[in-house]
Amino acid sequence: MNYVLKNLPVRSQKPRTTGFTMVMDKGLSIKEVENFIDANSDFVDIVKLGWATSYLTKNLAQKIDIYQDAGIPVYLGGTLFEAFVIRGQFEDYRRVLQKYNLKFAEVSDGSISLNHDKKCEYIDILTKDVTVLSEVGSKDAAKIIPPYKWIEQMQAELQAGSWKVIGEAREGGTVGLFRDSGEVRQGLVEEILTKIPEEKILWEAPQKEQQVWFVKLLGANVNLGNIATNEVIPLETIRLGLRGDTFDHFLGDHQL
Amino acid sequence: MNYVLKNLPVRSQKPRTTGFTMVMDKGLSIKEVENFIDANSDFVDIVKLGWATSYLTKNLAQKIDIYQDAGIPVYLGGTLFEAFVIRGQFEDYRRVLQKYNLKFAEVSDGSISLNHDKKCEYIDILTKDVTVLSEVGSKDAAKIIPPYKWIEQMQAELQAGSWKVIGEAREGGTVGLFRDSGEVRQGLVEEILTKIPEEKILWEAPQKEQQVWFVKLLGANVNLGNIATNEVIPLETIRLGLRGDTFDHFLGDHQL
Amino acid sequence: MNYVLKNLPVRSQKPRTTGFTMVMDKGLSIKEVENFIDANSDFVDIVKLGWATSYLTKNLAQKIDIYQDAGIPVYLGGTLFEAFVIRGQFEDYRRVLQKYNLKFAEVSDGSISLNHDKKCEYIDILTKDVTVLSEVGSKDAAKIIPPYKWIEQMQAELQAGSWKVIGEAREGGTVGLFRDSGEVRQGLVEEILTKIPEEKILWEAPQKEQQVWFVKLLGANVNLGNIATNEVIPLETIRLGLRGDTFDHFLGDHQL
Repeated sequence: MNYVLKNLPVRSQKPRTTGFTMVMDKGLSIKEVENFIDANSDFVDIVKLGWATSYLTKNLAQKIDIYQDAGIPVYLGGTLFEAFVIRGQFEDYRRVLQKYNLKFAEVSDGSISLNHDKKCEYIDILTKDVTVLSEVGSKDAAKIIPPYKWIEQMQAELQAGSWKVIGEAREGGTVGLFRDSGEVRQGLVEEILTKIPEEKILWEAPQKEQQVWFVKLLGANVNLGNIATNEVIPLETIRLGLRGDTFDHFLGDHQL
Repeated sequence: MNYVLKNLPVRSQKPRTTGFTMVMDKGLSIKEVENFIDANSDFVDIVKLGWATSYLTKNLAQKIDIYQDAGIPVYLGGTLFEAFVIRGQFEDYRRVLQKYNLKFAEVSDGSISLNHDKKCEYIDILTKDVTVLSEVGSKDAAKIIPPYKWIEQMQAELQAGSWKVIGEAREGGTVGLFRDSGEVRQGLVEEILTKIPEEKILWEAPQKEQQVWFVKLLGANVNLGNIATNEVIPLETIRLGLRGDTFDHFLGDHQL
Repeated sequence: MNYVLKNLPVRSQKPRTTGFTMVMDKGLSIKEVENFIDANSDFVDIVKLGWATSYLTKNLAQKIDIYQDAGIPVYLGGTLFEAFVIRGQFEDYRRVLQKYNLKFAEVSDGSISLNHDKKCEYIDILTKDVTVLSEVGSKDAAKIIPPYKWIEQMQAELQAGSWKVIGEAREGGTVGLFRDSGEVRQGLVEEILTKIPEEKILWEAPQKEQQVWFVKLLGANVNLGNIATNEVIPLETIRLGLRGDTFDHFLGDHQL
């Protein structure tokens, strides 16, 4: 770092399994990717090409290679997995992963109805090819899943081979873990944490208030996702207690 | 596209007259324009240099040339037209269009009071030089124009020579077609569509929910405008049913 | 400018002491800084590296040099000053300013409790090294400072050597000068202006509505800060009455 500040929380280093930051790219150009990596690569653990934006990305293979050559694995948004599955094109999806040299994939059912055993079967099959992240929670604000169900599904998906389970938000930070206002469903999060190891969960938290909330609950090294490309350094300061929102939080821990 | 997904809605191709996307540039640098074009040019039909930002743009001629050489025509925001007109400098405005080699212009009265016959006269004069888009709707939230008036004005402006009429929003997506909350004035839109051919209208819809609403009402190939430069690929996925918001909408159409 | 529009308000020119625009950089890469300068340098008077983002910035010295070589001084956010002070590292902070060749610094107490005499002492000491901007107002929404207190503190800080005093907002435009909704605390601003010369105050106003409010109250050449990098040209059009929001405001002044 550029200067020494005493008593900062200790951050995990790359390759990270905790304190993980997943960033969403929703259509950056090649040069924009290069600029992004230049400033942020130390703080980015994985990049998601949001939902099905990869369908329309020019020079997709080159883009993925640039990220991966910089030590940042890439995966395709879960909505794309669902778009292939609902069209009966799951085998085509596997070929896409291979063609683009992807080492990670997401399995989700945010936009489609998928029998949960079938979802776990997809996870099981894909773990033969790649490391799987699977997502729990609907994109439909009307579909409220009770906490015990989140837990059951997360447990079954980890059992089926998921490396981590993702708690759904959206790019905008509503639905799933959050109310329409963006507020965290606190009881849900706390109940999940009684049963699922924290390091196995990646919390989607695109809004600053949501990131602050998770850092205050779980510390500097909480796994967070759906971070916008221009919010990576701001998030890192939140993790370190170097932004107003968490400034006090870590001082107490370190008896200043 | 990068892989084959079955049963997607058929999108119009460039040069488009339907399924048209108008993007707002509110001050990109030359290199940012090049990056933008690199990733998005297939999905952008015209760029508006927002309101009077062109007054302050460095290397304006070069910027316009870069867009136009990439097959993306440029026009200057309607507020600039109004700024010239209210100062009695309409002839200066015509010279600006010529100097910068512009082939399109906008005629609007969102910030000034303009007798409607006079507005149509400006349209008529400008059609001698360029292709005219004219805009209906005030930027003043207090000025509610009833639907029959929108229709009368749109008809008169098309008659006077407008290539398309624009339904006003703002950069932020309020006023005109929308309520203060950003919600679409649905009755207004539906009544307009009983009288004005859909392909003659360009709907300003900067917010995602507004874009989704129009795609659900009018399909993948609705004309949309005031799209932010980093929302072009996201909009394209909405048009194709490849984002959560419209995922279901097109599946029904294609009997999956 | 690119063409002549009559009867525009007269803008101050660089180096400005009124009509000053302070921009917040919260993590741009080197190339992004170059792109930003290319399009905006005439309209930017100083750049703040937001809160403690400088701790994490790659090639920090190079970044600061690029700004300063383009005639744009740089300073580090007040939260960083506070992070050093609360750790008993004030002398380290002074060395950081020197190491990076900074000519400006901010003294604030938005996140820490600091006796006001002590704050003025820090201002006094730092004026030996750099030009000081000091900030009044808490980042804590619960801490409401009454207007007479704002005035007393601003007067004491100017007395202690501050070049300008900053009215606190946040990156998001809440707290300090603003209510939770982002609305300006009008009575507070008006009372401050009865006692403190306008040119000595830099108002943080990141939201467009806030910028419009201050331009309408104090004219084109009001000092505004916490402007996002992509809102500099839009702000300049607001100052000049070339955006819908202030279009009418200046026309009246010039008897069109």
